[in-house]
Amino acid sequence: MAAVSNVSPAELGNGSIISSRGTRDDRRGVAPPRRVLMTKAHASTTRSWFATATAACTSSDRSHRPPRHPSIYARSQPHRPTTKNRTMTAPTLLNRKRVLMIPGPVEVSTAVLEQMAGPPTSHVDPNFINEFGEALEMLRTVFQCKDGQPFIVAGSGTLGWDMVAANLVEPGEAALVINTGLFGDRFGEALEAYGASVTHVRAPAIGAVPTLDQVAAALRERTYKVMTITHVDTSTGVLIDLVALARVVRTVSPNTLVIVDGVCSVGGEDLDMDAAGVDVTLTASQKALGAPPGLSVVMASQRAMATFKHRVTKPTSYYASWAKWTPIMQAYEARKPSYFATPAVPLVKALHASLKQIVARPMANRTAYHAAISDLVKRTVTAWGLRLVPQGLDLAAHTMTAVYYPPGVSGAKLLASLAAKGVTIAGGLHPQIATQYFRIGHMGITATHDEELRYVHRTLALLEAALREQGYLQDADPTTDTVVGAARVPASAPVPAPSMELRMRPKL
Amino acid sequence: MAAVSNVSPAELGNGSIISSRGTRDDRRGVAPPRRVLMTKAHASTTRSWFATATAACTSSDRSHRPPRHPSIYARSQPHRPTTKNRTMTAPTLLNRKRVLMIPGPVEVSTAVLEQMAGPPTSHVDPNFINEFGEALEMLRTVFQCKDGQPFIVAGSGTLGWDMVAANLVEPGEAALVINTGLFGDRFGEALEAYGASVTHVRAPAIGAVPTLDQVAAALRERTYKVMTITHVDTSTGVLIDLVALARVVRTVSPNTLVIVDGVCSVGGEDLDMDAAGVDVTLTASQKALGAPPGLSVVMASQRAMATFKHRVTKPTSYYASWAKWTPIMQAYEARKPSYFATPAVPLVKALHASLKQIVARPMANRTAYHAAISDLVKRTVTAWGLRLVPQGLDLAAHTMTAVYYPPGVSGAKLLASLAAKGVTIAGGLHPQIATQYFRIGHMGITATHDEELRYVHRTLALLEAALREQGYLQDADPTTDTVVGAARVPASAPVPAPSMELRMRPKL
Repeated sequence: MAAVSNVSPAELGNGSIISSRGTRDDRRGVAPPRRVLMTKAHASTTRSWFATATAACTSSDRSHRPPRHPSIYARSQPHRPTTKNRTMTAPTLLNRKRVLMIPGPVEVSTAVLEQMAGPPTSHVDPNFINEFGEALEMLRTVFQCKDGQPFIVAGSGTLGWDMVAANLVEPGEAALVINTGLFGDRFGEALEAYGASVTHVRAPAIGAVPTLDQVAAALRERTYKVMTITHVDTSTGVLIDLVALARVVRTVSPNTLVIVDGVCSVGGEDLDMDAAGVDVTLTASQKALGAPPGLSVVMASQRAMATFKHRVTKPTSYYASWAKWTPIMQAYEARKPSYFATPAVPLVKALHASLKQIVARPMANRTAYHAAISDLVKRTVTAWGLRLVPQGLDLAAHTMTAVYYPPGVSGAKLLASLAAKGVTIAGGLHPQIATQYFRIGHMGITATHDEELRYVHRTLALLEAALREQGYLQDADPTTDTVVGAARVPASAPVPAPSMELRMRPKL
Repeated sequence: MAAVSNVSPAELGNGSIISSRGTRDDRRGVAPPRRVLMTKAHASTTRSWFATATAACTSSDRSHRPPRHPSIYARSQPHRPTTKNRTMTAPTLLNRKRVLMIPGPVEVSTAVLEQMAGPPTSHVDPNFINEFGEALEMLRTVFQCKDGQPFIVAGSGTLGWDMVAANLVEPGEAALVINTGLFGDRFGEALEAYGASVTHVRAPAIGAVPTLDQVAAALRERTYKVMTITHVDTSTGVLIDLVALARVVRTVSPNTLVIVDGVCSVGGEDLDMDAAGVDVTLTASQKALGAPPGLSVVMASQRAMATFKHRVTKPTSYYASWAKWTPIMQAYEARKPSYFATPAVPLVKALHASLKQIVARPMANRTAYHAAISDLVKRTVTAWGLRLVPQGLDLAAHTMTAVYYPPGVSGAKLLASLAAKGVTIAGGLHPQIATQYFRIGHMGITATHDEELRYVHRTLALLEAALREQGYLQDADPTTDTVVGAARVPASAPVPAPSMELRMRPKL
């Protein structure tokens, strides 16, 4: 356990937790035990950031210190553990036949699952009204939008596009789409369905992003009502610098509303709507917000709400109309019963539970965790000689990793083999390269809780085993100083049968 | 147990289940025990249909015989119990501090809750694809629409209006709304949001329905693309005769599409889309389909799909566009992975579990159960001297009961008192009379499973107690020959604390 010595006792918090760690692991039924993860080979072959990050992340103490990779750590505030925060920690869900490591839906905490399993609740029950109100309030912290108008509506992330198109763009008005993948194409399609005149600024290649000059030039050519940015395009894993893009808009075309599709980013990537000057961010419940799928979650700045209120024509949708939803959301925040359409009660309760866990820590801490886990995955697969879809680490999302299959490896076989071994990852989605790459999601609890490395280690270890089955990595020496050696977990480790009792055990 | 003697041994099925009934009740931890429900007073004071219905409904054998009210029984096919059907039966959920008896969301079966509590699942997982496909197939049975195109989309019932408006009505086309309450007003609003020219045929008064002559006259005046009918208006509890209305349309204006808002009816009221000639029926998951809220469920006839395919303009929505959803639904039915927007996976799995329980019995059997329970509630409250909102039993829904508060009774106090005692019912919703009435929902498992009368008995007993608290019913003699006497359960009966273990117990 040499790695632990890199962390000072003060940073580790309660010493008694450390000393009883083995016992706690046993009591919580976690498998495989930590000593499998922290082999001697691990301690001797890993270096610098990885050893310290592993030590910090796999530690069973529940203080949520950010990983110790210095450059990442510098970005986040040190976090003082409190009793309250500890109660928010979800126990591991790894005692399952298979874990879900796709870019959404994601693994969720036990506190979230408990809400899903709760008895049916009226949508105007005082407790539910309070939870809905709290969820709306917490979204302002997550989106970092102090005066924003939040919306939580039954639907998928796609419904957020309809909300933007139906409420902020009047038929015939112009919209500029910054396009880094499939989801740029589709946001454009959604805007067109509502009568917008859409122009795309496309990335020069799959995995790349348009330049700021391209965007500035487009903004000078025409007056755009809105400009949309896909923060992370789930089809390519490309992350775009929305702070720089928003700055261009403010300079060149200050009246254009900046709309962010944050479906695969909110809760996992750095996002400060107020600081960046973003007008609307839309997302969904089943990604880095850590809840099950079924909710469209949107935050609109007061500038966006003013634009909506001053529109000449009525909103061109009924279900997506902010005229209908704004008073409902305000009523829930005022803790008053109201009704437009029945909310997805269990999903709202689940989102509330996840948001409580999220806001218990500084957002910078959460994004630092996502960045560290992302780095681990990307360094491991690139050390194996695999190629990322994003053309550079600075263009790669921290919530997911998109990777080309190496030559000679069958994608279908690889995914099926991994699923059989105990991890579900996703195939490609971008139509031009769909069969050529795979995607791993690492967001929500798989990137932010004490056992996060168990999910990621299992994923990487089994991925390596699946690649070896197809003859790839056969020449590599597993004892050499590569990241893959560090992430080693016996692929043959027994996986306990799924247990309802374990899954439903109250949080510790 | 005199009432049981009205039922022949053959009809009761397995004699050993009957003889071991007491033991089964004990094992299942059900409270209060049946002998409290079946008091001597009950047997001696009740007459005809009620006694037999009670005997059939409260029997702990799991054969799902329809209630023995002759006129109702005649409508349904006798049902032969099989082992398979028995495994579909959900155990009672009554061991809870409070039960939910509002007109949706409703109580759900344990099988449904188990799906909600399950581990996260990929939306393209082969098992999930199969369940989604099966759910779509089962909807054809539930809607009785052999060649229909089913849709299951994350959203509320309201989204179904958008689907109709955005896919079947082109801007400027005319729509006729048969209006029996708030939901007629709102369906009209939704159609207008998409550019339809809307005419309402309104009921002459709250609680009434328009006459067939009124509807025929309206259809002769103008060519309507669609005519909408709210099968049960949840705001008034009014049921409309859609078979007769559809016949008028077929006679007077055969090209007009007949659209049914079945949000508070599908799965609880008689509905045979093919026989009635209905083109589209829309509903939601959280009513008589017996699942939690969060899914819009729609069935479109091939005639409706042809109308959609031949429209001149594109659908005027993105998220509600059938152009997007039809191939997705067809792919799930073909058991192939596909993606437009992430489905609400746990809700679809929950709906699948509920649909399996629903289609295990003939639909006529299910609606007969709903009718019998509805009759019990309505006869009881009218025997107390309360007045229904619908102007006549033939205009009253079987899935819910809307009742005016009697003079001198405070609605707010009554609802709060009932909630404190252990039953949540709903206040009024129709804006013109919102404070003057309350609504009880009785659909899904509270109207179809073995213990259905426990839910309804508890509701009626506690409602009676709450009315007495406010001085109403004080003069009534509880031992006299009224239905209330039959429904007596000691309001002071202890209610066990909620138990996760009990709720999550695997189905028997």
